[in-house]
Amino acid sequence: MTQQKAVLMNANHELTDANIEVPTPDAKDVLVKIQAVAANPVDVKQLESRDGQSAPKILGYDAVGQVVALGSSATKFQIGDQVFYAGAVNRNGSFQEYQVVNEDLVALKPVEITVEQAAAMPLVSLTAAELLFEKMHVIAEANANSGNLLVINGAGGVASVLIPLAKWAGLTVTATSSPKKFDYLRQLGVAQPIDYHADAEITISDLPDNSFEYVVSLFDITTYWSDVTRLVAPLGHVGTIVEFPNDIAIGKLKNKAASFDWEFMFTKSLFHVDEASQGQILTQIAALIDEHAISAPQITTYTGLNAANITAMLDQLKTGHTTGKLVLTI
Amino acid sequence: MTQQKAVLMNANHELTDANIEVPTPDAKDVLVKIQAVAANPVDVKQLESRDGQSAPKILGYDAVGQVVALGSSATKFQIGDQVFYAGAVNRNGSFQEYQVVNEDLVALKPVEITVEQAAAMPLVSLTAAELLFEKMHVIAEANANSGNLLVINGAGGVASVLIPLAKWAGLTVTATSSPKKFDYLRQLGVAQPIDYHADAEITISDLPDNSFEYVVSLFDITTYWSDVTRLVAPLGHVGTIVEFPNDIAIGKLKNKAASFDWEFMFTKSLFHVDEASQGQILTQIAALIDEHAISAPQITTYTGLNAANITAMLDQLKTGHTTGKLVLTI
Repeated sequence: MTQQKAVLMNANHELTDANIEVPTPDAKDVLVKIQAVAANPVDVKQLESRDGQSAPKILGYDAVGQVVALGSSATKFQIGDQVFYAGAVNRNGSFQEYQVVNEDLVALKPVEITVEQAAAMPLVSLTAAELLFEKMHVIAEANANSGNLLVINGAGGVASVLIPLAKWAGLTVTATSSPKKFDYLRQLGVAQPIDYHADAEITISDLPDNSFEYVVSLFDITTYWSDVTRLVAPLGHVGTIVEFPNDIAIGKLKNKAASFDWEFMFTKSLFHVDEASQGQILTQIAALIDEHAISAPQITTYTGLNAANITAMLDQLKTGHTTGKLVLTI
Repeated sequence: MTQQKAVLMNANHELTDANIEVPTPDAKDVLVKIQAVAANPVDVKQLESRDGQSAPKILGYDAVGQVVALGSSATKFQIGDQVFYAGAVNRNGSFQEYQVVNEDLVALKPVEITVEQAAAMPLVSLTAAELLFEKMHVIAEANANSGNLLVINGAGGVASVLIPLAKWAGLTVTATSSPKKFDYLRQLGVAQPIDYHADAEITISDLPDNSFEYVVSLFDITTYWSDVTRLVAPLGHVGTIVEFPNDIAIGKLKNKAASFDWEFMFTKSLFHVDEASQGQILTQIAALIDEHAISAPQITTYTGLNAANITAMLDQLKTGHTTGKLVLTI
């Protein structure tokens, strides 16, 4: 059996270097030789979770690589194709040299950006596109929409694709961050950057009632619930991806007949619902990148697949002050 | 000035008979001579509310009548047109002989049903259509959808239109009620009636996980929250129209990436957003009635506009055990 390097999360939820077997593709899988991966909050969350996590397990939910083998009924790709994907949270991830992944979740890598840039894109692109286009029903066409989007926490990973996509679709974007990241936000396409510090001169509390058809919170929304429910427009959408422990006063959205939308990009693969849509979304994202309609996220690159590097990346993510995405080349 | 009969909610929130002036249409209004009205929970709610309600006020949010005068810029209807509408909750309602209403909220009465049947339809039709087609994104075409809808409290007013509309659109409907109303539910189009009593042999707790793409609660949803979050399918919608005082664990919908949709048919007129869509929805409902694609709700009819009759209707609604709608001819 062929061996490979991998970074394992062991039973104590520590990251360790290991040599393991190269996995064998299931019928609908492709086997991918990985070139670059990215780190995400979902890695941190699994590492820190103690409830019912199966371990040892390989984390990592963003990858670019080359297809080197096909499952018996895999038909969408050919040996040698360079692909990108996020994969499934209930299977082994990308922090290894070779990974098997359901071909439905995979797309050809965009050609106009580097391997490292492309590795930063799948998870955040799927999250951003599903939230905007499937949950909030923004039309996925250039300038096909009008209206205002508020993004709470505009400097992180998901925002790095969500803001350019929203602007491409025609929305006017307001986003919060530290003032030292305002230039970065403007570069992403933000029309109105807002300081997230409560003691700033202008905060989201100063924005007018009912002024955002779309409010996206990429931070614990309970912190901002009073402002969120005040700012969302009648018939509007409030969306989030960040779990929180508290119950909330959802009734505050009633008179506005607004919707609260959860986005979780692993739902489709966890429940085996509409999985092929993820390959399709990534194909559309690749086309937008290659047409220069949107730009790739800002990245910081690490080199070498080992537990020390992955640990360093996840420690940086835990600070909550990472701009764009953290990528590792293998 | 011409006088008319009206049933007023006075400053003590009692219903009283009164003679008042016939109102004068604003620019975009039509003046309607009312022939029949219906009672709704929103009437009860305003009567029972003590916070910030302006009174005296005329309740009543369902009417059929004849256009007898036009505002200076009203262009959609002609004198003599027979119309139906729900109107706006922040203006005087239909418990009077003559009412002014924004023409955008109005449509021609369906011709194939009686005045009384048509009076039962506007508020529940707008609520049902907005919830299904605008909030839950069911496609508003005959048999254009598949999937399962659970309706909690299937025997009330909104359900009397929501269930036929959902069935017309292609959904398979499960609904709860008392067993003595199962025949009525089947007549509406329910495939699977379920006893709402907790000690029944089969309750919604026996239905399989993840089996409803759409869950509509026409009752305090917090009572059923655990089952609702278990039953809704991944990527599904949970919708309600009933306010509740408690905070809820919205996080239970996170792993399914489901949406929580509020529907409130007065949002558009309260906030002056997309008001003309309500006239359009009622026009579509009238067409479906006239094509016999859906049936009019079951009604109980009262005769004579006076405080005693309106009080009797609202007392019946308060029991929570009314089948279909209560209508009053003027």
